[in-house]
Amino acid sequence: MASRALIRKLEETIENVPDFPIPGIQFKDISPIFLDPKLYEDVIVDLVAFSKGKVDAVCGIESRGYLFGIAIAVALEVPFILIRKSGKLPPPVISEEYDLEYGSAVIETREGQIKPGQKVLIHDDLLATGGTTEAAAKLVEKQGATVSQFSFLIGLKDLKGEEKLKKYNAEVYHILEY
Amino acid sequence: MASRALIRKLEETIENVPDFPIPGIQFKDISPIFLDPKLYEDVIVDLVAFSKGKVDAVCGIESRGYLFGIAIAVALEVPFILIRKSGKLPPPVISEEYDLEYGSAVIETREGQIKPGQKVLIHDDLLATGGTTEAAAKLVEKQGATVSQFSFLIGLKDLKGEEKLKKYNAEVYHILEY
Repeated sequence: MASRALIRKLEETIENVPDFPIPGIQFKDISPIFLDPKLYEDVIVDLVAFSKGKVDAVCGIESRGYLFGIAIAVALEVPFILIRKSGKLPPPVISEEYDLEYGSAVIETREGQIKPGQKVLIHDDLLATGGTTEAAAKLVEKQGATVSQFSFLIGLKDLKGEEKLKKYNAEVYHILEY
Repeated sequence: MASRALIRKLEETIENVPDFPIPGIQFKDISPIFLDPKLYEDVIVDLVAFSKGKVDAVCGIESRGYLFGIAIAVALEVPFILIRKSGKLPPPVISEEYDLEYGSAVIETREGQIKPGQKVLIHDDLLATGGTTEAAAKLVEKQGATVSQFSFLIGLKDLKGEEKLKKYNAEVYHILEY
């Protein structure tokens, strides 16, 4: 559990930008966190505490999921597996399609990087509707591994992403909730 | 300067995939490095040694440039600035267009994150033709800062990217050269 001081500092640092990417949406810009290496490290300590001793591998979702995900994996001394957008990883890959508001998208991992039987943390910066996260969970299960945990910097409560993840019986953690 | 042991270990770990993304191209897949947290840390130690005491900020290019870039910045205790593809950062942004083999692309940083007078390291995983890297350097200069260093995991010698960067009078480093 993040301290009140960390939560307050993050709330002060994250910038709320109205009407981006479309009118009516308030965008949470996390990029100022990376300008403050001490704050970044405090976030990592908190996310590592959630996962310590509980997972064998960390999957990070491109691209902002890499910024915290790689440091979590290194601190836990476990493999970090890149989940990338379609067409960026060379074959052989495992793919999973998911729905977007308009159309669909595909995410991929390289075949064999997630090992059967592993307990996996899926990490991303933001949990919104949970579509991408659920696709990542399916990628993990397709390779015979188990999703044990999900972690995010931010969860957007109104979009009900957490409900979509309930079926995995995994722990879900986000430092901030809006 | 990377040790021979580090270079050999990286050469064994990086996977050479023929005919990706197009026939005739041999793709260097660096994703296996992230499966080995000890190897990842050895890469970071080497890249940090190159930049220690020499820069006030690190710019990382989306998305693989984030994987090493964030750790370099945290170890140096300096800000890490995200360089993203067009349309992903909210306004106000500084943009720079550059040529691709077919067409063009735009990269952006948020206005004000790079400060006038800063000495900046630009980091990416791979130096190929240098088009993206040069655009990143222009972004840095547009904000009144100076590019002091460029670092990469890999430099592709035949594509002559390094020549394109000469005009910046900056140090250029890559651990591996192909």
